[in-house]
Amino acid sequence: MSGTTSRDTADLWKAALVEIERPSSPVARFSAAESLAMDGGASLGPWQLAYQTYGTLNADRTNAVLICHALTGDQHVANVHPVTGKRGWWETMVGPGRPIDTDRYFVICANVIGGCLGSTGPASTDPSTGRAYGLSFPVVTIRDMVRAQAALVDRLGIDTLFCVAGGSMGGMQVLQWAALYPDRVFSAMPIATAAKHSAQNIAFHEVGRQAVMADPDWRGGRYIDAGVRPTKGLAVARMGAHITYLSEAALHRKFGRELQAGHAPSFSFDAEFQVESYLRYQGVSFVERFDANSYLYVTRAMDYFDLAADYGGSLAAAFKGTKTRFCVVSFTSDWLFPTADSRAIVHALNAGGGPVSFVEIETDKGHDAFLLDIPELFATTRGFLDAAARARGI
Amino acid sequence: MSGTTSRDTADLWKAALVEIERPSSPVARFSAAESLAMDGGASLGPWQLAYQTYGTLNADRTNAVLICHALTGDQHVANVHPVTGKRGWWETMVGPGRPIDTDRYFVICANVIGGCLGSTGPASTDPSTGRAYGLSFPVVTIRDMVRAQAALVDRLGIDTLFCVAGGSMGGMQVLQWAALYPDRVFSAMPIATAAKHSAQNIAFHEVGRQAVMADPDWRGGRYIDAGVRPTKGLAVARMGAHITYLSEAALHRKFGRELQAGHAPSFSFDAEFQVESYLRYQGVSFVERFDANSYLYVTRAMDYFDLAADYGGSLAAAFKGTKTRFCVVSFTSDWLFPTADSRAIVHALNAGGGPVSFVEIETDKGHDAFLLDIPELFATTRGFLDAAARARGI
Repeated sequence: MSGTTSRDTADLWKAALVEIERPSSPVARFSAAESLAMDGGASLGPWQLAYQTYGTLNADRTNAVLICHALTGDQHVANVHPVTGKRGWWETMVGPGRPIDTDRYFVICANVIGGCLGSTGPASTDPSTGRAYGLSFPVVTIRDMVRAQAALVDRLGIDTLFCVAGGSMGGMQVLQWAALYPDRVFSAMPIATAAKHSAQNIAFHEVGRQAVMADPDWRGGRYIDAGVRPTKGLAVARMGAHITYLSEAALHRKFGRELQAGHAPSFSFDAEFQVESYLRYQGVSFVERFDANSYLYVTRAMDYFDLAADYGGSLAAAFKGTKTRFCVVSFTSDWLFPTADSRAIVHALNAGGGPVSFVEIETDKGHDAFLLDIPELFATTRGFLDAAARARGI
Repeated sequence: MSGTTSRDTADLWKAALVEIERPSSPVARFSAAESLAMDGGASLGPWQLAYQTYGTLNADRTNAVLICHALTGDQHVANVHPVTGKRGWWETMVGPGRPIDTDRYFVICANVIGGCLGSTGPASTDPSTGRAYGLSFPVVTIRDMVRAQAALVDRLGIDTLFCVAGGSMGGMQVLQWAALYPDRVFSAMPIATAAKHSAQNIAFHEVGRQAVMADPDWRGGRYIDAGVRPTKGLAVARMGAHITYLSEAALHRKFGRELQAGHAPSFSFDAEFQVESYLRYQGVSFVERFDANSYLYVTRAMDYFDLAADYGGSLAAAFKGTKTRFCVVSFTSDWLFPTADSRAIVHALNAGGGPVSFVEIETDKGHDAFLLDIPELFATTRGFLDAAARARGI
């Protein structure tokens, strides 16, 4: 990738590798005797989850909010990221006085199983070989991620979560939580998500995986042993995915057809248009902090997600008789998880008799809107949690 | 790429290489003295265009229809392809009794400058070095393609074309023809196209180019000299692009979340879902017939296209006073060149006082609809050409 300062990238990756094995976050460790039974049939153990918490658990243990992160997210919701030094990915939503108010709620977020920031994943050391798992790591599902989180919530001594919230893949986990542990979820906020991954979204993920696997430095997944990294392939995967996170309107507003420098085209293959330079930067900066095999595993988990399939093809059956209070949120310009996907969730909840409110927020910011400064999202979240807190007696 | 039969691919590519230098199509050769002045400042010569014709030019030389092909198309509109053995890419539209009726019209289609099927492009031999041009080939624009076609039309002794028609990048050439040579275009049919390439489309192209350039076998564009090919990178580029040619509805209808074989997921990174296997096939079969550097050049030409920019920012000015009869066609589910892009063309033509009809065709087949069996497209084309032929006295 042109524009890469490969020395910086290597230094950051060195820091990321340290986080994989000895994260700066608190870690819940589970022994081989407490192994995680996974959907693919594997039994993973020993294993661990790295997590962050914010705020204080009340005496009744009723104010815990679990945040579920998206594909390339992590547990660093509202603190400085230990590798990149950037601010937490949901500081707009989570913190003192924020919509998910840490003066009021005890907020938990764990890196997903299969991830690369301290929870066990393909870059972790396989104790049976002393080498990184690579592709010998078992394929992960959204339900595996949720089961692992439930073990952490047990470990923290929490029975019922006041709320489970998240966007995109985080929203998939929210839905899975509510279906799998209905009595442990008082309220749920799935944002910009779907109850199953669409053919188009599987297709985009597959292109990204093929880009990673086409990189000769991927080495069949054994790059950590070889001391190399498939940075070019992973950057291409990220560039392609990033387009799907934005809307055409947002790209047009941000960049249009503006050229990089000066006014005349250079007639070359350099990053001529500003949008090209922006995408290249997205690719390069992603590679600094993310493991290529984790990218394969976590995209795969999303592809496998089809909640209705586990309930005889009926999404309503997944939520039958639920008492969980739902607030479903979508964004008008999100073409990755369009409003129709959220409506399908709402219809299923209505059919199952569940209490649900639904907000479609008007914005041209695309799928990434759930991470951005969207006042209507903040107001919706605050209002929903306030009402739920009253019902819960917090 | 898994699923590649690399021997077959290599054999087909050998046939493709022959077509680059000694095409089975007729060739119009232009000497160094007849060099092509290009937008980027270069002067290309000697140069050549490989083309196909169908039907017979009438005595008045008034019945010539120029077809302009899309990004990965070629001159083999309505005959068996010399490399792949497949049928022509627009046999649904062009042939005896077809909407563009070769019993009535003399149809011409030339491989674009920068292409790889017999017209001069980056895989052609640079006479000054005896090696393939590679990246020393000058960057090409849509206007360069059109100027080259005009030289061919001159060579064929045709003054005014009865119609210029094409979809996608072909439609960009149609618009450029009408703007650059208004007196030589009696009627024009730009289909599923735009007067400028959007930021999102530039972004998708840039990801494809980065996928090619990330392949170590690309060798800075000098792979032909080295006897290798960036097949993996080019296949990834094609896979990503192919998603944009279809609609989510079409992908859902064709594949949904169906698994490859059997009913149970295999929990692996094999092509588990049918849509993955389909995409991999698209990647592999594209690589058999297309040159990677041509892919860079032709995508770049589309990115540079912004017709209004050449006329002081006014698209209406590009068509001011035109007497060309236009029929603009878009498809409801085309998100690569959405109907709004076609409307912008229609508005400009109306503002310029040009005669224009506009048809938005209802289909869920996405951008690729212009290549498919769409009865409303055929009826529209037939009706438009019939009326134009009466006006032209054919």
